[in-house]
Amino acid sequence: MPVAHITLLEGRSKEAKANMASEVAESISKHSGAPMAAVTVIFHDVPQDNWASGGVLFSDKQAAASGS
Amino acid sequence: MPVAHITLLEGRSKEAKANMASEVAESISKHSGAPMAAVTVIFHDVPQDNWASGGVLFSDKQAAASGS
Amino acid sequence: MPVAHITLLEGRSKEAKANMASEVAESISKHSGAPMAAVTVIFHDVPQDNWASGGVLFSDKQAAASGS
Amino acid sequence: MPVAHITLLEGRSKEAKANMASEVAESISKHSGAPMAAVTVIFHDVPQDNWASGGVLFSDKQAAASGS
Amino acid sequence: MPVAHITLLEGRSKEAKANMASEVAESISKHSGAPMAAVTVIFHDVPQDNWASGGVLFSDKQAAASGS
Amino acid sequence: MPVAHITLLEGRSKEAKANMASEVAESISKHSGAPMAAVTVIFHDVPQDNWASGGVLFSDKQAAASGS
Repeated sequence: MPVAHITLLEGRSKEAKANMASEVAESISKHSGAPMAAVTVIFHDVPQDNWASGGVLFSDKQAAASGS
Repeated sequence: MPVAHITLLEGRSKEAKANMASEVAESISKHSGAPMAAVTVIFHDVPQDNWASGGVLFSDKQAAASGS
Repeated sequence: MPVAHITLLEGRSKEAKANMASEVAESISKHSGAPMAAVTVIFHDVPQDNWASGGVLFSDKQAAASGS
Repeated sequence: MPVAHITLLEGRSKEAKANMASEVAESISKHSGAPMAAVTVIFHDVPQDNWASGGVLFSDKQAAASGS
Repeated sequence: MPVAHITLLEGRSKEAKANMASEVAESISKHSGAPMAAVTVIFHDVPQDNWASGGVLFSDKQAAASGS
Repeated sequence: MPVAHITLLEGRSKEAKANMASEVAESISKHSGAPMAAVTVIFHDVPQDNWASGGVLFSDKQAAASGS
């Protein structure tokens, strides 16, 4: 019954999430001993206006990087 | 001041959430001793592409189950 | 497969948690339509030094209230 | 590498989030000793139908307050 | 800068966590495109008194299973 | 009623947390418009064995850095 909440900037494809879900669940099952069926993986998509590192929103970093 | 974050597959009605919020807050208040007014309940709706159990996204399980 | 993370000030008894877990899972199952067995409830105990409301840690509120 | 997840009712402007991100990261960096660049701040916007205090959704409080 | 919060029943070894951290970060980096160095993985250990599935705490399931 | 969950490596003093709680709540109140009394700040202390960046636990980075 392990639960993984993975927070990502929005925009990843369903295929990318399917691959991550499969590999992350397999790793957690293998090393925790929990059965694969008991592992939950939940993705939280976050827009660039809602995520900051170093105190600056990603949407503002993009603007700075592109000179706009 | 207990805080409950409840993560659900998206698609539940507002009425369902209102009922859960009321009952969950009442239970937490009753057994924790915190006043009802101090209990916070927050729902996080998650699309089927963002939730996996057993390493498989729910959107892929639906597809498999319906033969499509 | 709904998941509830409930954050509480530490100190609640196991019995209180057992009662909350049972009632919260029943409410979520009833109103979300998810089977009872698929509902996860996780408690996170937080010490008074780690929880603030209104910008003041609970451990400092207790000190103020008791005049110490 | 401290990580702050801030849950808010939806509707705050990007400017408000940019200001919070900057000030929150600065405070965490200053008092935790982590470098500013290592601080992550993530906002989670929650609609009024998904947030309850005292067991009542915010969308129902608004309705009650406006007499509708 | 993806962030994974992984909640587990307490008791897993440091080695198990080191292996999960490495594999989970690699999977997230590979499929999200974020650089490996930017991926954060945080484990939250939860005692059996604080985790319920199907409305029953794990500590009570263990007791039932062992006949005590 | 904004809620901030701040995850930190364990070891910060109560004074550091009190300062962060006060400043973070003030910033959130000021820019979100929520009253100061309605802002919740919760710290989650995480041991070095439970936190990885770049796929490596902090406890292993420390060991590597000190040559042990």
